Amino acid sequence: MKISPPDLADPRLAAAPDARFVAATADGVLPEGFFSTSNLPTYVRIGGAWRMPREPRMDSALVLDASDTLWVREGRHVRAGDRVAVGRAEDGSEGILVSAPHAPDAESGEFQFMTSEVSREKPIDYSLMARLLLDERDRGGYPIWVTGPALVHSRARADMSWFVQNGFVGALLAGNAVAVHDIEASIFGTTLGMSGTGQATSGGHGLHMRAINRVRAAGSIRAAVEQGIIKDGIMHACVTHGVPFVLTASIRDDGPLPDVITDMLAAQDTMRRHTIKATMAILIATALHAIATGNMLPAFVTEPDGSMRELTTICVDSSEFVVSKLKDRGTHQAFGVVTNAQDFMHILRLYVERELASRGGTPAGAAAS
Amino acid sequence: MKISPPDLADPRLAAAPDARFVAATADGVLPEGFFSTSNLPTYVRIGGAWRMPREPRMDSALVLDASDTLWVREGRHVRAGDRVAVGRAEDGSEGILVSAPHAPDAESGEFQFMTSEVSREKPIDYSLMARLLLDERDRGGYPIWVTGPALVHSRARADMSWFVQNGFVGALLAGNAVAVHDIEASIFGTTLGMSGTGQATSGGHGLHMRAINRVRAAGSIRAAVEQGIIKDGIMHACVTHGVPFVLTASIRDDGPLPDVITDMLAAQDTMRRHTIKATMAILIATALHAIATGNMLPAFVTEPDGSMRELTTICVDSSEFVVSKLKDRGTHQAFGVVTNAQDFMHILRLYVERELASRGGTPAGAAAS
Amino acid sequence: MKISPPDLADPRLAAAPDARFVAATADGVLPEGFFSTSNLPTYVRIGGAWRMPREPRMDSALVLDASDTLWVREGRHVRAGDRVAVGRAEDGSEGILVSAPHAPDAESGEFQFMTSEVSREKPIDYSLMARLLLDERDRGGYPIWVTGPALVHSRARADMSWFVQNGFVGALLAGNAVAVHDIEASIFGTTLGMSGTGQATSGGHGLHMRAINRVRAAGSIRAAVEQGIIKDGIMHACVTHGVPFVLTASIRDDGPLPDVITDMLAAQDTMRRHTIKATMAILIATALHAIATGNMLPAFVTEPDGSMRELTTICVDSSEFVVSKLKDRGTHQAFGVVTNAQDFMHILRLYVERELASRGGTPAGAAAS
Amino acid sequence: MKISPPDLADPRLAAAPDARFVAATADGVLPEGFFSTSNLPTYVRIGGAWRMPREPRMDSALVLDASDTLWVREGRHVRAGDRVAVGRAEDGSEGILVSAPHAPDAESGEFQFMTSEVSREKPIDYSLMARLLLDERDRGGYPIWVTGPALVHSRARADMSWFVQNGFVGALLAGNAVAVHDIEASIFGTTLGMSGTGQATSGGHGLHMRAINRVRAAGSIRAAVEQGIIKDGIMHACVTHGVPFVLTASIRDDGPLPDVITDMLAAQDTMRRHTIKATMAILIATALHAIATGNMLPAFVTEPDGSMRELTTICVDSSEFVVSKLKDRGTHQAFGVVTNAQDFMHILRLYVERELASRGGTPAGAAAS
Repeated sequence: MKISPPDLADPRLAAAPDARFVAATADGVLPEGFFSTSNLPTYVRIGGAWRMPREPRMDSALVLDASDTLWVREGRHVRAGDRVAVGRAEDGSEGILVSAPHAPDAESGEFQFMTSEVSREKPIDYSLMARLLLDERDRGGYPIWVTGPALVHSRARADMSWFVQNGFVGALLAGNAVAVHDIEASIFGTTLGMSGTGQATSGGHGLHMRAINRVRAAGSIRAAVEQGIIKDGIMHACVTHGVPFVLTASIRDDGPLPDVITDMLAAQDTMRRHTIKATMAILIATALHAIATGNMLPAFVTEPDGSMRELTTICVDSSEFVVSKLKDRGTHQAFGVVTNAQDFMHILRLYVERELASRGGTPAGAAAS
Repeated sequence: MKISPPDLADPRLAAAPDARFVAATADGVLPEGFFSTSNLPTYVRIGGAWRMPREPRMDSALVLDASDTLWVREGRHVRAGDRVAVGRAEDGSEGILVSAPHAPDAESGEFQFMTSEVSREKPIDYSLMARLLLDERDRGGYPIWVTGPALVHSRARADMSWFVQNGFVGALLAGNAVAVHDIEASIFGTTLGMSGTGQATSGGHGLHMRAINRVRAAGSIRAAVEQGIIKDGIMHACVTHGVPFVLTASIRDDGPLPDVITDMLAAQDTMRRHTIKATMAILIATALHAIATGNMLPAFVTEPDGSMRELTTICVDSSEFVVSKLKDRGTHQAFGVVTNAQDFMHILRLYVERELASRGGTPAGAAAS
Repeated sequence: MKISPPDLADPRLAAAPDARFVAATADGVLPEGFFSTSNLPTYVRIGGAWRMPREPRMDSALVLDASDTLWVREGRHVRAGDRVAVGRAEDGSEGILVSAPHAPDAESGEFQFMTSEVSREKPIDYSLMARLLLDERDRGGYPIWVTGPALVHSRARADMSWFVQNGFVGALLAGNAVAVHDIEASIFGTTLGMSGTGQATSGGHGLHMRAINRVRAAGSIRAAVEQGIIKDGIMHACVTHGVPFVLTASIRDDGPLPDVITDMLAAQDTMRRHTIKATMAILIATALHAIATGNMLPAFVTEPDGSMRELTTICVDSSEFVVSKLKDRGTHQAFGVVTNAQDFMHILRLYVERELASRGGTPAGAAAS
Repeated sequence: MKISPPDLADPRLAAAPDARFVAATADGVLPEGFFSTSNLPTYVRIGGAWRMPREPRMDSALVLDASDTLWVREGRHVRAGDRVAVGRAEDGSEGILVSAPHAPDAESGEFQFMTSEVSREKPIDYSLMARLLLDERDRGGYPIWVTGPALVHSRARADMSWFVQNGFVGALLAGNAVAVHDIEASIFGTTLGMSGTGQATSGGHGLHMRAINRVRAAGSIRAAVEQGIIKDGIMHACVTHGVPFVLTASIRDDGPLPDVITDMLAAQDTMRRHTIKATMAILIATALHAIATGNMLPAFVTEPDGSMRELTTICVDSSEFVVSKLKDRGTHQAFGVVTNAQDFMHILRLYVERELASRGGTPAGAAAS
């Protein structure tokens, strides 16, 4: 792909000052305010003419040698007395012009690091998410939570139950597996036979089937809660706190549990009764359910006064791929958090508890229960 | 985040025609040319006024019901006779306006799927890469290849050797491990004691140390080739075809081999003698070496006639993360290929052979050897 | 965790010979046959007594210094004249004993590298897979293929169609999305609006809905093939070659297509009519469908003569996680291939074509069609 | 691969009782204690003879129909009155034998779910890790911490500093980048120009070079701390609390900082002076440094009394691959935690603080400072 050179005849550039050079005072140490290079075509004004340095690369300095040749040099190769360009402007106004016809960062048009949208290397702003969740609760919003089975395997059950119990969940959308693992954990202390410390247990491979069978015998999850079969956990919290849940089926289901909607068109219609009310969405550790929900969600919320805001959509997954896939399926407003479901839930709860304390409030949902 | 509504008083919008509606002729089947919705704020011109549909979502139709209420409805819920909006324009010119103040795709400003830059779901254009490689060879370019050890473990050695032997490699930049595994494979048929079919072999854990020791005894890789200790593979091809290689050390090195540059500043300087000549870069299955090379490479090549083009940079990895990290470190021109090193090398060679055949040429490097 | 020391009073160990030491002849070069250390507790017989070396680590040598102290030393630190232990046996029979009470590799009980079951660093044996596929076809087996949408996005459609046309597919199990993308590619040349070279196209976001709508209007995939709406691709090949397919629904489906089974219990029952006949399974780029199929598959095949063999199960994914998850759900017989669907299909076809040629046969399925 | 049938003539099996069948009392509900099937060859004793059921699959029941044919049936297909096998033993002692010649789980020889060693779906036992860390501190152990730059980008700096300040870090082993990002964060509040909330900042791409340059001007990290250039963070904590650190170079280094050891053989030797003292290892978000350290670490610790225990090695990474690779390079004792560095550090600190409180102690290191 051809790169068009900048128009150096442009009056603004033609009138630019010469770049300023300052001598280094020690070997391997650059003068304060040195110009730090990028990998883009760069032009330096010297004696009224624009010159490109030799051997361009990023993270280095512009050095004018004794014979007036201009080089890009790593700081460690600069010797005391070398003339080093100073300045920060990249638009030519200080005599240095960086040309980026194909803007490397689409928003800023500037050479930048760390511009990817989703990365495990980005800090996670739990404080902001906690405030958003509390704001939603305070204004009577309808946050929908969409979760995958890893949340239960990893034993974030207690934290998820806490959010349900304390009024932060408008509706829970999940698959059969989430409820099966949650109920197996309540009855047997295991998920797919794995203990809470991650060990496969002997004879454990049948426990999820036994859990399903007991609920099928009871007739429904609500009945199993009422009969004391299910004593704690996410489904228990939903039943006892009146939080609606939608359990949808898939071809990999065991059982399924009696409450599961097995027809996919009926399941989508039921999910949509919640997505049209959603004012926020938290999607955790599930590609299938996150994308399904994303397909149904508008990217915006219309407020009572008619104004619109972006529908806050948080997508949590161990891999960047799921968030990128969600965006590739059109849910461009999703904000990605690359971490493990257990840790996400634990820290989010901690920050919500702190924010609650700082607002001086008691948990509304808890008070109501 | 607030979303600004579009300026519906804009003369162009104020003069827009009404949207056109066509009756569905069968249950669950939309009229040809139906308007397919997105999740963005959408305005439909009806009776000269702009209206927003109820229950917005993507991938659905705009349906006007008997009482003139406008809905977003999935195609399967449309009944014969329902009035469905038709048209494709989203700019209001056909009576439907999609408002995207925060353009979901930065380049097009349009609602689109599959806009992520790097994804395992994107097709890989081997044909284009084969043409680029041949073009480089034809014009006497200097393509640098930067590889990680997975290339050798996965037994893409033969294919990599072929590229070296046939004149497609200007220089090879790699670490000690690539050469160690390649040489172990030549002497013992294993890499870290793993056979060519992926089995760990008994007693195999010492074989890489024995391979290193023999080359240390010989004094250099070249000497080991000349003494018949190394009989085939990547390093053998480099030595016998006069292709320069740079082996740089790391803290995880065993040995190292005698040719390895152990001081990192010397190693960087040596790498850079090749990056300043590079006209193309192929980075395969290595985060460390890919980012190191990316740090040194300009994003552009200056042609003999003074014109500039983008420096073609192909980054191959099993995970999207490595390519994103490379871009996050400023090598924004990198094009990502998400696949396995073995398969990449195998298919790339196949396409290069086909392109060679179609150009009627014989392998230049091979002819020379 | 405590580590039990070996029983050095065991007669076999008590009678072991002293370890043999050989002097190094050059600085940094070990004698041939040197003992290569591991990170496990190691005992060396010297003067009839067992001693543990100081500063243990792997990939190094056992060196006896001038004062008869025993060290683990990296080869590069060995000086000419240093006494270095030689031998390969780790059971004490040559005077060196490696103790591994918690066997690091469960199968061999031996210190080994590269023992993980699934890794992108393992070579892929396409030759073996090609032979297995041909053997299945020759003996009239029933290989089931289970695929995800990435196979279609990445444009492995042509290769998948070839396998269908040539008699290698007993049945195809997939979801709505695979068929939707395949049919969009046949009608419009795009998948979710993305071109065959990976670009999002303007106005492309509605194309999959238009493709679905045309098939809904035709009434079925078969009808759409017969009416010339679908002209090529995977579904076309299945229809024209009489290969059964099962399309199952999910909550993320658009449409769906008329052939899709929307009730999950009916869908599972239909899939199982094929899994009970399966003699081989190839699972490509899908977690949901791979695990669902794995749940239904026996781990073994009973031959007509009553003997049993393992049911060959190949699972292809870009990430180790999907294969590990499949195994964690009990499909322990699955063999993982960590690569991209496009490349896998392309190379597998190439190897099958070669194997066909070497067997001198013509494609059976092709001949039959 | 052939599967050998079990020896049914074995006296123990020949004398086994018939399997017990119980009638289901409701449609789709199995009797309590039903036998839950696996995908392995299964033999059921009926009328003194061993029979294999038809249509085997996992997670289902063994059902004897009216004509005495034995089936594997999903629970939902069982009708009231169907005879269902009960029992849990798989060794034939209750009339049901599961044959696993190639033991699916190497340790238990039993069909189990969730047996993978490393998975994001496994619960993380922070409580155990906190106790281990405190135990190490109490007994004067030497835990080495090995970290990658993601720890700093994600702003776990404060938590890492806390561990340094409170006596939990024997030595810190890291690369140039960790110190560069930490110092940039201290001076400018950014890492590679990215703010603490994850935004790329304008003009930010030069900030890491300016940070490096200031430390080079000061002469060393210690000098920069003493001159007030570095005011907080990980390196500051190490300097002010006398915790040794080793910074090793790589080919991707900018600068480097003055303290960085640029020769890799010297770097390895320096690291090893700490690994030979290590009593625990915590490896966070770094493949290169984790594997390098793993190469040098024994898998065991010898206690003062001569007894041995496993050297606790915790490896934290966002991807299962890094942990598997570490094990594939021989560090088989590593325990994998699949999460994000920020979250890991935050929760680990929280649990250590709780454990400290429960032990009634004050932070030892803090007291000393």
